[in-house]
Amino acid sequence: MDTVIEKQTEAPLSAEDSAALIDRLARKARNAQKVLASMSDAEKADALRAAAAALRDHAGDILAANARDIAAGEERGLSGAMLDRLRLDEDRLEGIAAAVENVADLPDPVGQVIDRSERPNGLQFARVRVPVGVIGIIYESRPNVTADAATLCVRAGNAALLRGGSEAVHSNRAINKALAEGLAKGGVPEGAVQLIPTQDRAAVGAMLKAAGLIDMIVPRGGKSLVARVQEEARVPVLAHLDGINHTFVHASADKTMAEDIVLNAKLRRTGVCGAMETLLIDRNYPDAAGVVKKLLDADCEVRGDEAARKLDERVKPADDEDWDTEYLEAIASVAIVDGMDAALDHIAAHSSGHTDAIVASDADAVETFLNNVDSAIVMANASSQFADGGEFGLGAEIGIATGRLHARGPVALEGLTTYKWQVRGSGQTRP
Amino acid sequence: MDTVIEKQTEAPLSAEDSAALIDRLARKARNAQKVLASMSDAEKADALRAAAAALRDHAGDILAANARDIAAGEERGLSGAMLDRLRLDEDRLEGIAAAVENVADLPDPVGQVIDRSERPNGLQFARVRVPVGVIGIIYESRPNVTADAATLCVRAGNAALLRGGSEAVHSNRAINKALAEGLAKGGVPEGAVQLIPTQDRAAVGAMLKAAGLIDMIVPRGGKSLVARVQEEARVPVLAHLDGINHTFVHASADKTMAEDIVLNAKLRRTGVCGAMETLLIDRNYPDAAGVVKKLLDADCEVRGDEAARKLDERVKPADDEDWDTEYLEAIASVAIVDGMDAALDHIAAHSSGHTDAIVASDADAVETFLNNVDSAIVMANASSQFADGGEFGLGAEIGIATGRLHARGPVALEGLTTYKWQVRGSGQTRP
Repeated sequence: MDTVIEKQTEAPLSAEDSAALIDRLARKARNAQKVLASMSDAEKADALRAAAAALRDHAGDILAANARDIAAGEERGLSGAMLDRLRLDEDRLEGIAAAVENVADLPDPVGQVIDRSERPNGLQFARVRVPVGVIGIIYESRPNVTADAATLCVRAGNAALLRGGSEAVHSNRAINKALAEGLAKGGVPEGAVQLIPTQDRAAVGAMLKAAGLIDMIVPRGGKSLVARVQEEARVPVLAHLDGINHTFVHASADKTMAEDIVLNAKLRRTGVCGAMETLLIDRNYPDAAGVVKKLLDADCEVRGDEAARKLDERVKPADDEDWDTEYLEAIASVAIVDGMDAALDHIAAHSSGHTDAIVASDADAVETFLNNVDSAIVMANASSQFADGGEFGLGAEIGIATGRLHARGPVALEGLTTYKWQVRGSGQTRP
Repeated sequence: MDTVIEKQTEAPLSAEDSAALIDRLARKARNAQKVLASMSDAEKADALRAAAAALRDHAGDILAANARDIAAGEERGLSGAMLDRLRLDEDRLEGIAAAVENVADLPDPVGQVIDRSERPNGLQFARVRVPVGVIGIIYESRPNVTADAATLCVRAGNAALLRGGSEAVHSNRAINKALAEGLAKGGVPEGAVQLIPTQDRAAVGAMLKAAGLIDMIVPRGGKSLVARVQEEARVPVLAHLDGINHTFVHASADKTMAEDIVLNAKLRRTGVCGAMETLLIDRNYPDAAGVVKKLLDADCEVRGDEAARKLDERVKPADDEDWDTEYLEAIASVAIVDGMDAALDHIAAHSSGHTDAIVASDADAVETFLNNVDSAIVMANASSQFADGGEFGLGAEIGIATGRLHARGPVALEGLTTYKWQVRGSGQTRP
């Protein structure tokens, strides 16, 4: 196995610069994608099942490659959290293979008719879903992304160009090799899933500039990666930078529901993008102290505005920055607001457009909030931690997007398609 | 009237640089857009009807302003075609006002539910259309774009930042002034439609870079404008650069239908983006000479490959560039191809992804073509000159997009919206 990996490391680099490398790989991907686009639902699903089987067949190779990455990571002094994201074991690898099968089971969006119409002259119009094309995935240390992202792309007829993090280089290569073997058995052309064979950062730059060759970039990783991608990309990017998410406890909120939702939204997992960062409490909500006490008693640091600080002596003062901070840990900012309008204003000023929620018994308040908050996901009486493609019933997600075009919120297979217009006539010419 | 126009010319420039100017106008637009987003269908429609009335009320001012532009254009030696694009008269102005009313009559896409679902835990999901936000329109000499584009934006709840060409500066200001007056009567806030008050080209550059402030740019004009916008923009662009459109006459095509469609597709109007530029004829189509003769007899220059040149002595030789050229005049390139696969290959290699068509009686050939050509619009047995939002039943169009994301083909109101997820719960927390 080592021999193969070393060969892959050396092989394609030669004197080629990053732009030429990406150009070559992307053209290969485009050609492969044309074949993929013409494969049927069942053919693509079978190929993905073969890829899952190949992941299981090569478990030994993949885990050995992962052990090399882990050893190198320990030597480089990676944090425990980073090593954990990097680490594979038999259970995690089985999870990756099962996820590939899960995607194979999802309905194929390609060929779905979005709508049809007919004009008085007899022309018949249909908008039909087609793959986006070539999708670049730029990610960090989690090797499962190699399989997850490639699988979602292929399911919807797209070619994937994968650029993983250097910490996971051996794991990614081993996973990619197994995937490629399985997909090839299923008739998917070789170029449909390609791992960029260099860790040179210039290759990322070349991907970001490959407009016309790469159709969409999905960055998966921390804020600095996403920020770089959004800043440099000339290719459209599907991503979110921040999840500065608000939960607004309305005056009409049920006390138990409010406390359960706030606790869950903040603390179920503090490191996920759907976690609540700011709690807004209506001045007329009768037990603001109760909900703040719940957070504090659960060892959540609370940083409050002046009114919030009066609720509990453990509340620390919030400064201006707190309202624009994604903590991703057990810290919440809390503001007491004067009713719906003030809550909407605060959210409009500070939300990152990811997921904002209201807790309210008043149905009008719920609808006002859902209609007026302009985030990708707006929720009523539920925890913002549900912000996830699986929880939305999409089966999986390639990411969550806070941009305003193409696809918003959790993006799964449909977001990896676009459409074309099919027009059927019987000899019509335009007068 | 002149006084007002001069005041507008001088007013807001001061020492402000382009970036600061665009920043200020875009922020004003964003605030106005929030109000617009909360206006009802009927309120927006009524405001647009008031704008149409104001255009009619100010017809004298607008035509006088236009006369100034025409005089200046004649002095600068603008071509007859450019002067014609620039010129307004009572009929054309009435057409502009009627078009505004037509848009008011179109169904409002905002608030439409795209789909709904419910999860086993009781969470209810709905995807609801919302406005895109602030849309920048960059256009050239046609003053009607000022009204057309602004109107479509407002109908779908978007603010418009308009940057028209210097040739039409007085016309645009007069139209914008009338529009603003009418919209204000209907309760649309002042910032919802703004004409950039400078002809400095740096203002265009600043618009293109205003990511986060402007949500989408729509260029309306010639190829050099669109190319500049696509090259420089950091804001998503909805556009097409070229309409290198093919019509493929299949072996099974009906002779009369093929000749009618080819003639119409090439010659009805040669300067529109949906015009055919390249004719592909199946080697087994029985009367290739007939269709080429029709074009030649209609004074269309034909540039052919070797086989096409044998059909008629008037056919000139095509060189490599011809297959990638958008003539926009009475010239067609003609290639004889070996059946469907060769036609698909030629189109994949040379199409600009705008509108490609087949003429065929064979239903399988039609479906193969419609499924395998990856252009924004694929047509069977109809003239590619139908590539137009009005002909598609969309009521109007802001442009035709050949990009792969968000919206493709003719883009009307729906393409000026995006969606958000509304999630309704009853206290759900995530396990």
